[in-house]
Amino acid sequence: MQDKLTLMIPGPTPVPEKVLLALGKHPIGHRSKEFQAIVRHTSKQLQWLHQTKCDVLTITGSGTAAMEAGIINTLSRGDKVLCGDNGKFGERWVKVAKAFGLEVEVIKEEWGTPLNPEKFQKILLEDTNKQIKAVILTHSETSTGVINDLQRISSHVQSHGKALIIADCVTSLGACNVPMDEWGIDLIASGSQKGYMIPPGLSFIALSDRAWEAQKQSDLPKFYLDLNSYRKTAANNSNPFTPSVNLYFALEAALTMMEEEGLQSIFSRHARHRAATQAGIKAMGLTLFAEEGHGSPAITAVAPDNIDAEQLRKIVKEKFDILLAGGQDHLKGKVFRIGHLGFVNDRDVLTAIGAIEASLQTLNLLKKEMGAGIAATAKMLK
Amino acid sequence: MQDKLTLMIPGPTPVPEKVLLALGKHPIGHRSKEFQAIVRHTSKQLQWLHQTKCDVLTITGSGTAAMEAGIINTLSRGDKVLCGDNGKFGERWVKVAKAFGLEVEVIKEEWGTPLNPEKFQKILLEDTNKQIKAVILTHSETSTGVINDLQRISSHVQSHGKALIIADCVTSLGACNVPMDEWGIDLIASGSQKGYMIPPGLSFIALSDRAWEAQKQSDLPKFYLDLNSYRKTAANNSNPFTPSVNLYFALEAALTMMEEEGLQSIFSRHARHRAATQAGIKAMGLTLFAEEGHGSPAITAVAPDNIDAEQLRKIVKEKFDILLAGGQDHLKGKVFRIGHLGFVNDRDVLTAIGAIEASLQTLNLLKKEMGAGIAATAKMLK
Repeated sequence: MQDKLTLMIPGPTPVPEKVLLALGKHPIGHRSKEFQAIVRHTSKQLQWLHQTKCDVLTITGSGTAAMEAGIINTLSRGDKVLCGDNGKFGERWVKVAKAFGLEVEVIKEEWGTPLNPEKFQKILLEDTNKQIKAVILTHSETSTGVINDLQRISSHVQSHGKALIIADCVTSLGACNVPMDEWGIDLIASGSQKGYMIPPGLSFIALSDRAWEAQKQSDLPKFYLDLNSYRKTAANNSNPFTPSVNLYFALEAALTMMEEEGLQSIFSRHARHRAATQAGIKAMGLTLFAEEGHGSPAITAVAPDNIDAEQLRKIVKEKFDILLAGGQDHLKGKVFRIGHLGFVNDRDVLTAIGAIEASLQTLNLLKKEMGAGIAATAKMLK
Repeated sequence: MQDKLTLMIPGPTPVPEKVLLALGKHPIGHRSKEFQAIVRHTSKQLQWLHQTKCDVLTITGSGTAAMEAGIINTLSRGDKVLCGDNGKFGERWVKVAKAFGLEVEVIKEEWGTPLNPEKFQKILLEDTNKQIKAVILTHSETSTGVINDLQRISSHVQSHGKALIIADCVTSLGACNVPMDEWGIDLIASGSQKGYMIPPGLSFIALSDRAWEAQKQSDLPKFYLDLNSYRKTAANNSNPFTPSVNLYFALEAALTMMEEEGLQSIFSRHARHRAATQAGIKAMGLTLFAEEGHGSPAITAVAPDNIDAEQLRKIVKEKFDILLAGGQDHLKGKVFRIGHLGFVNDRDVLTAIGAIEASLQTLNLLKKEMGAGIAATAKMLK
């Protein structure tokens, strides 16, 4: 049905009406007092979301812009970094680091398997000369629906004493607990079209004092993503370049809604939806792609043995107006992914499971009795 | 009055209701067929606006992101470039080029004075070893309201035979004639919050075949702004990273409105508004900042001798809800700027002149009889 699509992909995520109305307002001057008030307010709200006293800066760009900014502002040509790679976004960190001439040691795991904190610990312990300048990883690996143990890996980095810890929290922030200061994370990159509940186009970067110290030494060339100019202008509640003014309107509205819901409620809602989605999928006789116990609170990837995932997605979209995500790269056709991130309620989760179940029935591919999935999901949503 | 502000700054510019409504729609998946159709359509529309057969790529970022992309994709470390600098945005090109280790020769003019094409010709003629890899300049210098003679400078670059010509057309594209192919421009950077009539957050970059050839040789490090990945994905009507989906909705709506108006009508409307604004300002006894005959079709800067420009702007905003731009850097307080770019009609120009005149009267600073300005403007709008 036209204009009735529900997004259950890991981004863009659904946007509340209040936020869309804010987005569609007439722009104002980005150097005006009125806009400065918005920058001041959203900066405070972003600190609340990151659970940090550090600066959280807003960049007009995709999440990858914030990831790149994290690398080029804290490191120098030839620096050694340790990258975790167990999916498309871990892989992207490796690519960015290599593009800027860093020496990259990769800790690789199969897609679907979480990063092993002990492997990080071992390499960090062996690095007695303190050659490793940064440990870089993805918290919630969007391509596989795996959540990596950022807290534990961060504790090993703290023991190392020299390396920074840099994390892509694009699909974890606003979905589960990411207490930046408590965990000692030095740099967090994220994007607007995720837990933030606004359309894509803004990205965010938070830096610890140690990260700012490293920034002073960094020799990688930069201009648009030079965070020093963002920090300077942020002190005056402004931006170095014309920012995406209307997305700032949306950001303020969305973060205000999030504050009203409260961090703990947001986290438990996402945890409940993960549990309900996993239960429904299993009850249908389908296989979860992520290793048991390591599913992301933002997204559940399903490996539907002997079923063409793209065919299933097509029916779910055409018949039920629900957009699921497909598999990326070598997983295309082999995996589908259910986003339950951001502005998602119990109804969305229940209907997604129901739509998947009904579509499998249409395809004559249902392994269990019709209704088993939705029953299991409903039970978890009680 | 609340929410009744009219923007007459050089960006963000006013946004049509149709475009705001498109902006405020629910986002869709950026890898969907529906979104591919929008990318395909807007790409064609962008070629129409640039009057080119070359690729025009869309970047999620501010105009400066496109400027930086222009440099880091076509040049290599140590390359010599010739930069025109007669205002804040010319200055920015110099800064970007230096940030990436280029050898920059600057042709400087006072703010308010146009770049002298003969100076470019002389240096290019003397460069018999063809050391100059690119000539870089700003077409419409937003900080001073000066339009530089891009066509003539480009003809000198054509005679050189080797150097690329790279132009910031941020406030000229969609305001006056910029026929990329006819003038032989190799690279044009622009931003959404200008002639495009949409809010900030997207930027655009068009590259000639020669620019793409140079791209293959360029060794400057890049990832987010690596145009090769934009070109590859554009071939499939897609983007390398999650784009600002809602701004794409707005872009399509705005470019469709522009097509309906027609390029020639858009250009003559801007020319008429420039003439009407200049006439009104002069009739009030105020001084134009840009050298006579070199005023930008997008913006008129006024140097109101012995009048505090910030005080005047404040009254115009508070009393008449019209936002004028102030002077930048050393011109703060000494200059104000009237934007007449994008979604601006005769009423806007007439009322801006009237509001300035009435505010000067309030300040007891009116040099001529009240009404002289608006009379002169009205005459030009006939």
